[in-house]
Amino acid sequence: MPLHPRGQADQLIAPDWLNNGDNAWQLTAATLVGLQSVPGLMIIYAGMLKKKWAVNSAFMTLYVFTMVMICWIVYAYKASFSEQMLPFVGVPGPAVAMNYELRQAELPAAGWSAAYSMRTMVYFHGTGQNELSCLNGVCPVVVDAELYRWCILDLGWWLSVPDGRAGLLWWVCDPCIVRHGGMGDGILRPRHHLDRTDFHPNNLIAALTGVGLLWLGWNGFKGGDPYNASPDAGAAVLNTNICTAMSMLVWTVLDLIFFKKPFVIGAVQSIITGLVAITPAAGFVGGWGAIIIGACSGTIPWLSMTILGK
Amino acid sequence: MPLHPRGQADQLIAPDWLNNGDNAWQLTAATLVGLQSVPGLMIIYAGMLKKKWAVNSAFMTLYVFTMVMICWIVYAYKASFSEQMLPFVGVPGPAVAMNYELRQAELPAAGWSAAYSMRTMVYFHGTGQNELSCLNGVCPVVVDAELYRWCILDLGWWLSVPDGRAGLLWWVCDPCIVRHGGMGDGILRPRHHLDRTDFHPNNLIAALTGVGLLWLGWNGFKGGDPYNASPDAGAAVLNTNICTAMSMLVWTVLDLIFFKKPFVIGAVQSIITGLVAITPAAGFVGGWGAIIIGACSGTIPWLSMTILGK
Amino acid sequence: MPLHPRGQADQLIAPDWLNNGDNAWQLTAATLVGLQSVPGLMIIYAGMLKKKWAVNSAFMTLYVFTMVMICWIVYAYKASFSEQMLPFVGVPGPAVAMNYELRQAELPAAGWSAAYSMRTMVYFHGTGQNELSCLNGVCPVVVDAELYRWCILDLGWWLSVPDGRAGLLWWVCDPCIVRHGGMGDGILRPRHHLDRTDFHPNNLIAALTGVGLLWLGWNGFKGGDPYNASPDAGAAVLNTNICTAMSMLVWTVLDLIFFKKPFVIGAVQSIITGLVAITPAAGFVGGWGAIIIGACSGTIPWLSMTILGK
Repeated sequence: MPLHPRGQADQLIAPDWLNNGDNAWQLTAATLVGLQSVPGLMIIYAGMLKKKWAVNSAFMTLYVFTMVMICWIVYAYKASFSEQMLPFVGVPGPAVAMNYELRQAELPAAGWSAAYSMRTMVYFHGTGQNELSCLNGVCPVVVDAELYRWCILDLGWWLSVPDGRAGLLWWVCDPCIVRHGGMGDGILRPRHHLDRTDFHPNNLIAALTGVGLLWLGWNGFKGGDPYNASPDAGAAVLNTNICTAMSMLVWTVLDLIFFKKPFVIGAVQSIITGLVAITPAAGFVGGWGAIIIGACSGTIPWLSMTILGK
Repeated sequence: MPLHPRGQADQLIAPDWLNNGDNAWQLTAATLVGLQSVPGLMIIYAGMLKKKWAVNSAFMTLYVFTMVMICWIVYAYKASFSEQMLPFVGVPGPAVAMNYELRQAELPAAGWSAAYSMRTMVYFHGTGQNELSCLNGVCPVVVDAELYRWCILDLGWWLSVPDGRAGLLWWVCDPCIVRHGGMGDGILRPRHHLDRTDFHPNNLIAALTGVGLLWLGWNGFKGGDPYNASPDAGAAVLNTNICTAMSMLVWTVLDLIFFKKPFVIGAVQSIITGLVAITPAAGFVGGWGAIIIGACSGTIPWLSMTILGK
Repeated sequence: MPLHPRGQADQLIAPDWLNNGDNAWQLTAATLVGLQSVPGLMIIYAGMLKKKWAVNSAFMTLYVFTMVMICWIVYAYKASFSEQMLPFVGVPGPAVAMNYELRQAELPAAGWSAAYSMRTMVYFHGTGQNELSCLNGVCPVVVDAELYRWCILDLGWWLSVPDGRAGLLWWVCDPCIVRHGGMGDGILRPRHHLDRTDFHPNNLIAALTGVGLLWLGWNGFKGGDPYNASPDAGAAVLNTNICTAMSMLVWTVLDLIFFKKPFVIGAVQSIITGLVAITPAAGFVGGWGAIIIGACSGTIPWLSMTILGK
């Protein structure tokens, strides 16, 4: 019996705009980004906090992951990436109808199409949005809040931010509001004075495991950004790793010189500053650029924390 | 010196049926499925059980993973997927001969061929079979058994099930036999009454880490099912995540409403019910379908467990 | 508005030597290899050692990962893989200049080119080098050293080994020097007699988690070795898993027969011996070959450890 090639007889399964290599990479990248949040950030928070908050903070991360995923497909993907409604805001709407999902992926605002279907695109951006939300939304200082208040608050926040690109705004505003007590002490800050001054991580091994997943998952976060398996994707991956490695090395050497020993918490912080610092530049700079950015992300936050005494 | 392109000069390495993108995705998907079992399920069990059973149950999972892998390639892959011998059972035989492995992958029963070699196909199905076996075969209630009895029992089970597609049968029968004491108390159920009534998980962070790997690994389990990096693969991945997120949200909201607080164990269970519920439909439904399936998988088991009091 | 396909309008982004499927697989493989070290080996060491050394050894692994990454791109990649200077040693130099990185990947010594850019190639080999360094460089017995001495020693070692291919040499020499006290007791061996005789692992679940990542990450380590998503990559992945499964099964059966129970530490060791044993052969042997190699890697080290009493 001559076998027909699976998936190549059928225009629905192998449309002419499909590049299997690009689709493979984009789905892989999205999965790596998902692993950054669950279990990555989940166990970073659970490990870095006091024992009494560990499970609560892990649960919060998991809740944000699921809640954002549903918000994302029901209204926020289109608010972020479809036809423009206002500057930086698209027309919100569901991204879950079959005929929409089967279409070739495109980003109308940018004038691009990609060589796979909308589903891959929606999922890739969904995990990215998730990861930003988990990174910002679950703040260490909120852990003393009762969990259900947090669930309601975070859902409210998401419903009121129509645009995923507002991630940048979120990034800026959210810590200001939440961390510094804008919502009031009883809701979102540790209620006990002791808890605000005496933090010690309960499980550094869990935190380091999570940081490893965060780092290598960033290969998907930045490597997926060119929307194809191009040399650009390779650039983003390599630069992400160079910058982050440099950031941790510089921070650790500063700790060795000034405090005579390295600190695990410092290493974790320097990895996160390195990952964040390379993010806007990962696909554009050469290796020397990544080294320089990493040297800065290992120095400037170290200086500010050391000088400011926190 | 003009360099020859690695792997393109050679029909053995780049045969004309090869699609590198499909092969890349299928190998990635298989690896993600492997991670579901080791370390995913390993640490879910280890974390969810009493401390005295943690290492034992992790070891059982690892044992099942290795034992099934060898059974798989020595006789079970062919019993599952080669020419039909009986309904649902193929002719058992080794899948390890060089000339067999180098061939283009095909599933004779289905009349398909894929754009990579048999090795990729055998490995993908092997990790899937592994994952189903670990999911079913390592039952929490068996953990009080002496480990070597378990090893022999599980091997016997596998040798007597000639067909990997019998996974469905296994899925139905195995919990009935093992969980409900069909094999007798001393062998496969906790011997002490206390252990049957007083379960509490010893390490929720480990369990949540494993659940994260299970969830994101399911991207490979379902995303690999179309056997190529097609839009279908994207559909399966997106639907898996939508359904699972919805399942956990609904379950958690029910917990919040009726018990005034969410439970980590409930979250873990709802993620597993969501993943299992979307499995037969992941490649076919649209996003709305996945939302509805997730709402059901978050409600029906919750109701049955709450009403039945366990 | 007709959308232009992202990345296909532009020779810089889609040069004619690019195979997106190969690039997708090579980047995925490299990421899997990265996960072997961070968090894989990090938590294997942290879990297998006494509690007082756990965090220290995890930090050492992380330090090696970052330090080797920077050494790699600044001078060692070219010393390993560029034009030959001496037998086994290339001309050292930075691999970070933009025009170098954008080029099609090639391995001049081997006369090959690959279907992606130098960046992907440099990163793949970088994570591999990292993994070998972490595997060898962070020896359990060094954990009593003060951390900063270790940092300086390891950097010195790396600066003095100009060639990444010297990994093989490293593999042989490094344990001899470091483990057996060639550097002197105070620097690199446990100072207290008790610590040399009474080892017990503090967290087997962490160690088993790490071993799972090491195993599945090896899919990238060997699966990336053909430098493309060819049937060879499938062979390497399948053989890696067959051999490792066989190795653990044989070792465990030997433990069951001679000691009447299996041991987790034995399982971990047998997985590592299986992975190492298949390494030179993974892309070449058929499945039967992998089974035989696995049987040997599960037997010979078991015999030598049992007979030699350690």
